[in-house]
Amino acid sequence: MKRRQFVQAAGLGLAAAAIAKPAIAQSAPEIKWRLTSSFPKSLDTIYGAAETFSKAVAEATDGKFQIQVFAGGEIVPGLQAADAVTNGTVEMCHTAPYYYVGKDPTFAFATSVPFGLNSRQQNAWFYHGGGMDLMNEFFKGFNIHSMPGGNTGTQMGGWFRKEIKTPADFNGLKMRIGGLAGKVIAKLGAVPQQIAGGDIYPALEKGTIDAAEWVGPYDDEKLGFNKVAPFYYYPGWWEGGASLHFFTNTAKWAELPKSYQAILTSAAAMANVDMQAKYDARNPGAIKRLVQDGGAQLRPFSPEIMEACYKAATDLYAEIAGTNANFKKVHDAYMAFRNEEYLWFQIGEYTYDSFMIRQRAKG
Amino acid sequence: MKRRQFVQAAGLGLAAAAIAKPAIAQSAPEIKWRLTSSFPKSLDTIYGAAETFSKAVAEATDGKFQIQVFAGGEIVPGLQAADAVTNGTVEMCHTAPYYYVGKDPTFAFATSVPFGLNSRQQNAWFYHGGGMDLMNEFFKGFNIHSMPGGNTGTQMGGWFRKEIKTPADFNGLKMRIGGLAGKVIAKLGAVPQQIAGGDIYPALEKGTIDAAEWVGPYDDEKLGFNKVAPFYYYPGWWEGGASLHFFTNTAKWAELPKSYQAILTSAAAMANVDMQAKYDARNPGAIKRLVQDGGAQLRPFSPEIMEACYKAATDLYAEIAGTNANFKKVHDAYMAFRNEEYLWFQIGEYTYDSFMIRQRAKG
Repeated sequence: MKRRQFVQAAGLGLAAAAIAKPAIAQSAPEIKWRLTSSFPKSLDTIYGAAETFSKAVAEATDGKFQIQVFAGGEIVPGLQAADAVTNGTVEMCHTAPYYYVGKDPTFAFATSVPFGLNSRQQNAWFYHGGGMDLMNEFFKGFNIHSMPGGNTGTQMGGWFRKEIKTPADFNGLKMRIGGLAGKVIAKLGAVPQQIAGGDIYPALEKGTIDAAEWVGPYDDEKLGFNKVAPFYYYPGWWEGGASLHFFTNTAKWAELPKSYQAILTSAAAMANVDMQAKYDARNPGAIKRLVQDGGAQLRPFSPEIMEACYKAATDLYAEIAGTNANFKKVHDAYMAFRNEEYLWFQIGEYTYDSFMIRQRAKG
Repeated sequence: MKRRQFVQAAGLGLAAAAIAKPAIAQSAPEIKWRLTSSFPKSLDTIYGAAETFSKAVAEATDGKFQIQVFAGGEIVPGLQAADAVTNGTVEMCHTAPYYYVGKDPTFAFATSVPFGLNSRQQNAWFYHGGGMDLMNEFFKGFNIHSMPGGNTGTQMGGWFRKEIKTPADFNGLKMRIGGLAGKVIAKLGAVPQQIAGGDIYPALEKGTIDAAEWVGPYDDEKLGFNKVAPFYYYPGWWEGGASLHFFTNTAKWAELPKSYQAILTSAAAMANVDMQAKYDARNPGAIKRLVQDGGAQLRPFSPEIMEACYKAATDLYAEIAGTNANFKKVHDAYMAFRNEEYLWFQIGEYTYDSFMIRQRAKG
């Protein structure tokens, strides 16, 4: 090759590099984001979902897209995670949307409402029943783009210092309880309380509160409620399938290359299925330990209590829907979907589980 | 810049490009793979899961990693998809591992075995109960790396030309049925048949077979079985939560950059949760149409039939475990896990669903 040719070729090489470089930078830029979780690190299930997500994103991008996960309270209080996303203080959070029913009760449908969908039905609604479209339309008003990111399954009904047998036993009962469920039991005369995870145990021990619900055996065991409130009720009718979500600031979401949006979407879906699987794998051992060694006494809510709460919930929805158009729109879609789902689930799923439960009991 | 400097700079530019290029190629190479599905395109649920997966991978890699999806029979017969992966004819397939029980009945645990785990429990076992570690250890012998990639939920028990009321009614019954279930009903005197999806309808219409199971309402409706075999039984006790899987040739898997492995893993998990959600969203409408307009007559399997099949399945497992160490190892782990799962599911999940089903029936 002659010198002149070499220079030309080198020049072309530079030009090509100059064109190619921004394209590469654009499609796989180095990005560092912060994600605030609403949960403490000690809950490897629910806090762990954000780590599963962050790790998947880092691996998929060869470490170029780093999402640092902070526990609730580290940089943002757990119950203000969504606000931090709305304001752009952080790019993302992992939270339970129903923590924000004070802003608008419509938030609750993204997590769980009393007597709502179970875990699988909630995913069916989100992904293939129009649920995420409806919720994201609503979340836009808060600068939030949301993706489902975990489910607990049906939660337990919580820990009670004394047995409750009739709806009247809720009268005057001081209970730590989340989401819209507080308003439901208030209709039965109870006094709902919002208390952060770490403060529940001392309140229950001192008798400042009479009862508290958290999640289920595996998480509850860590908090030790069985030692101070032995009656462990079920089912948690206010959380038939509680969904966690990854919230992203809409402007930050829009700035991402399409490939990164796709990577976040897949990673969130993986965290979603993985967190439910983890709860389902860990809860059986925990419920055995709590009952066999921890003094927990399992009690089902009586049919009278379930019926009274169902009626109170239905009344509550009608009241809110009367004054909140967002809520009414999502509620009507959600409840229509619920009725179709249980029509179907009662056939194969339910009769199969019924048989398997009976066979197990026979040994 | 002087000419000499320019040449030097250009030379450095070239050198940098020469170093950078393989690095870029290594971390995000252009790859084209072929994935053969075991299913026809008409099943947008189960075939669709492979498309969901392939689309997610292409988007996450800016189109660099293309996985072309072929329907069953296009390049490989549906029931030989795993063989094509083992031999390296294709890099991947999307299939039901229990199609290959003829090679080794151990394959079945990756999909579903009679009276096995439900959909959520199957995921719990795979992701957090040691299930995928066990299965992938076994699959290594077939050059397969597997990832769960979809679930149907509890399937229906299939379409019967005549009512069956007692275990004796299985005697002589010719039924199209998959996996190990054929060996179970054979113990009751039935004659199980392996027939591909498209050939079931004519066989049922002519009476060459007396009964056929496929999946559930949404898929079954497309095949029109209700027109020739009106009795629609439930539950499909041989598929409490049938899992589909993405099989990748282990050598091809090992060749991938870590980032691509991570992208495939997330995409498979997304397809997994998405396919179940799609079935759960589509089945309710289909079961209503089949019963209200299609003449389907719903029938539960009688307790006597369920008990007899349970006993036959348990006997079958003991027989196989006696001669197959792989099967015994996975079976023992799987069944121990099942017992723990139903201990837990009977508490919150089951009582919640029970109440919701009763409330729905009240209207």
